[in-house]
Amino acid sequence: MKLREIGEFGLIARIRKSWPASSPQVFKAIGDDAAVTSLLPGNDLVSTVDLLIEDVHFELSWISPFQLGRKALAVNLSDMAAMGAVPRWVLISLAVPSTLSVGFFDDFFSGMRSLAEAHSVSLLGGDTSSSPDRLFIGITLLGEGGKDSLLYRHGAQPGDDLYVTRTLGDSLLGFHLAKSLKGKTPSPEGQFLLQKHLDPVPRLREGKILADRKIATAMIDVSDGLLSDLKHIGEESRVGAVIWAERIPQSEAFRTLAPGGPGQAWKWALKGGEDYELLFSVPPEKASELQALAREWPCGATRIGRIEPLAHGVVVQDEKGTVDPAELKGYDHFA
Amino acid sequence: MKLREIGEFGLIARIRKSWPASSPQVFKAIGDDAAVTSLLPGNDLVSTVDLLIEDVHFELSWISPFQLGRKALAVNLSDMAAMGAVPRWVLISLAVPSTLSVGFFDDFFSGMRSLAEAHSVSLLGGDTSSSPDRLFIGITLLGEGGKDSLLYRHGAQPGDDLYVTRTLGDSLLGFHLAKSLKGKTPSPEGQFLLQKHLDPVPRLREGKILADRKIATAMIDVSDGLLSDLKHIGEESRVGAVIWAERIPQSEAFRTLAPGGPGQAWKWALKGGEDYELLFSVPPEKASELQALAREWPCGATRIGRIEPLAHGVVVQDEKGTVDPAELKGYDHFA
Repeated sequence: MKLREIGEFGLIARIRKSWPASSPQVFKAIGDDAAVTSLLPGNDLVSTVDLLIEDVHFELSWISPFQLGRKALAVNLSDMAAMGAVPRWVLISLAVPSTLSVGFFDDFFSGMRSLAEAHSVSLLGGDTSSSPDRLFIGITLLGEGGKDSLLYRHGAQPGDDLYVTRTLGDSLLGFHLAKSLKGKTPSPEGQFLLQKHLDPVPRLREGKILADRKIATAMIDVSDGLLSDLKHIGEESRVGAVIWAERIPQSEAFRTLAPGGPGQAWKWALKGGEDYELLFSVPPEKASELQALAREWPCGATRIGRIEPLAHGVVVQDEKGTVDPAELKGYDHFA
Repeated sequence: MKLREIGEFGLIARIRKSWPASSPQVFKAIGDDAAVTSLLPGNDLVSTVDLLIEDVHFELSWISPFQLGRKALAVNLSDMAAMGAVPRWVLISLAVPSTLSVGFFDDFFSGMRSLAEAHSVSLLGGDTSSSPDRLFIGITLLGEGGKDSLLYRHGAQPGDDLYVTRTLGDSLLGFHLAKSLKGKTPSPEGQFLLQKHLDPVPRLREGKILADRKIATAMIDVSDGLLSDLKHIGEESRVGAVIWAERIPQSEAFRTLAPGGPGQAWKWALKGGEDYELLFSVPPEKASELQALAREWPCGATRIGRIEPLAHGVVVQDEKGTVDPAELKGYDHFA
């Protein structure tokens, strides 16, 4: 069924019916000029937005509508995780080319809903429009937390250790694989990397524990690439940092398929965007508490470097010494 | 200067510097994974999103970047006005084609800021991405109000009178004029209509008074067209309504330039989208209080119809009787 058969308000009515808001904190969701919700007492509002654009962030030839719906929410949940906040409500902006079917959006919303319900996130509303050619998705995720117990990019201190959850670089390899597959079946390693790109796991539980127990001093999610995101911590905390290249955690699949062989693989892990792992700094006196916790986490956490004074800059060291920064640029949408 | 010369983070740094957050309610704005803000005690969160897409909502040949920045915020402020809420914070998503310059965004943000500061709205953050061809703007506006004193689309009762602020239809004529001008200088009437389309005035003060004094029973802003938006009130309040065609307020410029002459002009006023006026229902016992207030408003308010029982449907009457609904369709993005 084509969208024009049910129309803009038909689509909205369909979404509203398939995904009713059910939280006592939601007073008004879809169906008014704006949504009205209540924060829990003592909490502050945490808000983030993210764009996903066809032919920039994804191609419809290699991501299913269900996966796209999950991923659009996952990347925003990852921002909440990086604050140690609790996600609550989502608003969705969609600019839709006339080629897409009603079934596409049924699948898109059921994908998003599958992840939203796992984290008790309600749909509050949104906006829909036609689009001349490409699908544009804008997600606003609202959450809550106490402003003094959340984790920020500022707060890292020289001497803190740097940790990252799980592995890095998988998503970047998965992205390149997705673009080159063209219908071929990937190897099991390729399948693993694709999955890491298509269905990232936001580290909400881990982020909240790090914030609540005041273990980390600064935190960010790795979305632009480890080095690029570490520089954000550096700027906001006014510190430098060193990363030890050989410590960057890599998956088996990544090691098998990374171009350039094992000696160069870490460069992909360092640059690679869309990892959606947590990068955080921990003072040495909290190291044992962190390590005990991380042993219980499915994603674990690996020490990959240290916060340094501002004047040292943000540098990477491999076994030969400091790596030339020109070799190590992260993703820039306008570069 | 091209965007690629300063890059994505250069653009963000530039915006952050030109528009610092200055409200005591803002704990963290641009510069982290998410923004953190505090609501005033006793208030609930009001949130809305809107899309503006090049070649759907605007063309860069007839709207300046400054106007575009103002309008992108204005349409969201109008949603807050329709709730009787106080707007506080904005997040901006921009997907940007490589053809646009840094100067374009300087003007865009200074336009938006000019309106934001007039309403004490702070910039909280956003997301930027490249776009393959068109400019895509997603605005999230967050505000506050007490959930029991805000105004909703539900709440209208049969017997309530229907009012609308200022005039309708100007923006639709202005939109058609903008598309056909092609460099020609418009007449003074044309200039007035263009201005109504390019720089709508959100009725925030009026909306809040109607909510605070509990004068209106339901309210919406006229963005899709009077009839279409009245149907939303009808659906949410489970009522019908009658509009008296000859009472729909029209500007002098509109009467002069509306196609079809004075006898048909009201159809444009009825269908016309993007008016951003307030449509609201008022019980008869509040009529004199409303009229006294509206006399003080620069935009005024005109009685254009009445809420009826659900079974009557939403109908329009002209001097010949009830108008055939097939003549009166509002804007549907997918139709």
